Amino acid sequence: MDYLKLDKNALREELSEKRKEYERIREKDLKLDMSRGKPAADQLNLSDGMLNILTHDDCVNHTIDYRNYGIFDGIPEAKEMFCDLLGAEKDEIMILGNSSLNIMYDAIIRSFVLGVNSSCPPWSKLEKVKFLCPVPGYDRHFRICERMGIEMINIDMTPEGPDMDTVERLVAEDEAIKGIWCVPKYSNPGGVTYSDETVRRFANLKPKAGDFRIFWDNAYCIHDLYDDGDKLLNLFEECKKAGNPSLPYIFGSTSKITYPGAGVAFIIASKNNIRRIIDRSGAQTIGYDKLNQLRHVKFFKNADGIKIHMKKHAELIRPKFETVLSALEREFSENKILEWTNPRGGYFISVNLLDGCAKRTVELCAEAGVVLTGAGATFPYGKDPRDRNIRIAPTFPTVAELSEAVEVFCLAVKLATLEKLLNI
Amino acid sequence: MDYLKLDKNALREELSEKRKEYERIREKDLKLDMSRGKPAADQLNLSDGMLNILTHDDCVNHTIDYRNYGIFDGIPEAKEMFCDLLGAEKDEIMILGNSSLNIMYDAIIRSFVLGVNSSCPPWSKLEKVKFLCPVPGYDRHFRICERMGIEMINIDMTPEGPDMDTVERLVAEDEAIKGIWCVPKYSNPGGVTYSDETVRRFANLKPKAGDFRIFWDNAYCIHDLYDDGDKLLNLFEECKKAGNPSLPYIFGSTSKITYPGAGVAFIIASKNNIRRIIDRSGAQTIGYDKLNQLRHVKFFKNADGIKIHMKKHAELIRPKFETVLSALEREFSENKILEWTNPRGGYFISVNLLDGCAKRTVELCAEAGVVLTGAGATFPYGKDPRDRNIRIAPTFPTVAELSEAVEVFCLAVKLATLEKLLNI
Repeated sequence: MDYLKLDKNALREELSEKRKEYERIREKDLKLDMSRGKPAADQLNLSDGMLNILTHDDCVNHTIDYRNYGIFDGIPEAKEMFCDLLGAEKDEIMILGNSSLNIMYDAIIRSFVLGVNSSCPPWSKLEKVKFLCPVPGYDRHFRICERMGIEMINIDMTPEGPDMDTVERLVAEDEAIKGIWCVPKYSNPGGVTYSDETVRRFANLKPKAGDFRIFWDNAYCIHDLYDDGDKLLNLFEECKKAGNPSLPYIFGSTSKITYPGAGVAFIIASKNNIRRIIDRSGAQTIGYDKLNQLRHVKFFKNADGIKIHMKKHAELIRPKFETVLSALEREFSENKILEWTNPRGGYFISVNLLDGCAKRTVELCAEAGVVLTGAGATFPYGKDPRDRNIRIAPTFPTVAELSEAVEVFCLAVKLATLEKLLNI
Repeated sequence: MDYLKLDKNALREELSEKRKEYERIREKDLKLDMSRGKPAADQLNLSDGMLNILTHDDCVNHTIDYRNYGIFDGIPEAKEMFCDLLGAEKDEIMILGNSSLNIMYDAIIRSFVLGVNSSCPPWSKLEKVKFLCPVPGYDRHFRICERMGIEMINIDMTPEGPDMDTVERLVAEDEAIKGIWCVPKYSNPGGVTYSDETVRRFANLKPKAGDFRIFWDNAYCIHDLYDDGDKLLNLFEECKKAGNPSLPYIFGSTSKITYPGAGVAFIIASKNNIRRIIDRSGAQTIGYDKLNQLRHVKFFKNADGIKIHMKKHAELIRPKFETVLSALEREFSENKILEWTNPRGGYFISVNLLDGCAKRTVELCAEAGVVLTGAGATFPYGKDPRDRNIRIAPTFPTVAELSEAVEVFCLAVKLATLEKLLNI
């Protein structure tokens, strides 16, 4: 059955039936949650070996005692491990605290207060600062912009990544555009991995602003669900080839590798950028938690250790993604009222409904005890101009909970769409 | 012998003798360091029980799984422990990352970008922002101001704390004065604990600026060398009594209780201040390292556990302070060319030489292989107007090293003073 091909009477009949189904489900008094991009407890258990891994000797047998002050930009062992994993040199990386979001926030704050480089004024001196925001995207990126009064410009996502024609044109013509937020692999929420051509076009951008930066949040860089994960071209290398080494700030963390909140985060950037960040953030702190960095290094041993660890995550998450995706396939392959992505990694599935149906679907789910990410959250200012996008986060619930939740979700999609088609 | 009472000939004779001594010491090729306020390895060993203290069950048996996202302002167990220790309610404290300096920096940054409260504009909109800086003081405080272009005004320290007559007058007349840096107990570097009257005068300040804050860096709140440690009146309580609950930001950390860099840091402030900080820093990060907070709680159990732990630190540090102080007593009780403080806690000893002798003393020490904190470092902009103050950090070297280093130091003081008195 495809609602888009039904006449009003058939739609009305279907609505009446779905409403009965919905009432039955409401009586179940469910409490389910598909809103949060959080690892489940069994994923966290994978890292419990890290809790008790450090000994006294581990901490002291270095050029300095890692239990004491010293080393601002990360212990060499951690730098080496992440450089191997991500392709960078030791003076092109800093290992910092527990949160890559905080590194991004600090980068923006520094740009406002102290400026990005010596030839451009601090953003606080400018009339207007704008960022390009591929949509749907990550609400936390947008929230930083909103907090700082940065004007956000929506850029449509395509199956290849952001619409690069628009990106290239805008950055070339508007000096107020100072950055773009990207989650280039298994994007949040679409699960899109940018194509090689998209990455190359990023590396070859010719921004009018001399202090434009690509905020490359590589949050899901090794978060593959399948052995043949998506391959993302190394932006940093491409930028060097293009003679644009200082264009990207590349961020990452182990929040979804070890523990969210108790992981380590890093930034990769050109030697010049790193040198400037160190210089400009020296007043901020004496240093970051070296013992937690060391904990990670001892637990993983090396970059391969991280990759092996991520396969264990994939074993646990894959069935959850497949539970949701097979339900969507079953319910909506003929009934063309829903489009969805088939991510091969990351933490989210993104769906598009008919225009004007997202909020109502989230509302219907909530009334039936299933919490979804708020409609609009994936857009700047929380405003989805077409009110059609919903982000599904399948990792935290169990497979059994997910099956139940996604059933409610599919029903809510149908109800909201029927109401829309019938102008109710 | 008191150089101040010698005639030129006697001074010359003494100089010639001291120079010979100095040459003998230089030949020893020493490598000693009294520059850094760092715990020694034996102090760090006291906390090694913390390295392996957490189990899986410790982490998961809470309202939420502490290994996962969630809780922005600190785990309740950590709040309770530090509230008990410092006298605050649970909604008057936030437990954050590893660095109280970073919390102070963030507070200043937020004031610039977003403002301190809703009735005052962000500091970035103001022509000028000034801070009062009791001197000698902590170089890292001054560095934040320097980085942010905040004009620093020196305030003399007295044995009771900062010169409050001047503080009261200046904050009452100048709206550009937005804060004052205080290390109220065992001040860095003087080791002065503010008197009850000083604390009460702070609590009753009537600043012209509606967004003036006392930056109360209580870094050495329980860092007593003796059982009968100095008692510091609770500023927070006094502020409440005075009807000024929102005047102070109170900072602290376990950097010198457990591990520098791998400790936990906190801020205590009025409910309104805390609520605003949470609101204004929500865009910054998802949360801080709850596992490290939990590690601390399990290790100490409660506030008393911290106090017992600090007695062990005192056992290790006390002989070091006494080594330095007894040498100063021996060399300079009659020879009145040096004044020094007798701190009963904290991390530093502060000495004042004759005007114009500090830099030269540090230089002479360096040439003889003894590193001291740079002269001037204890003043804003690194400029000691009288070039007389030197900070001695006795905790990091061994007692044997200290004995040797302080001997060199005393000799350097004498040489520099003799040169000065003889106009050489």
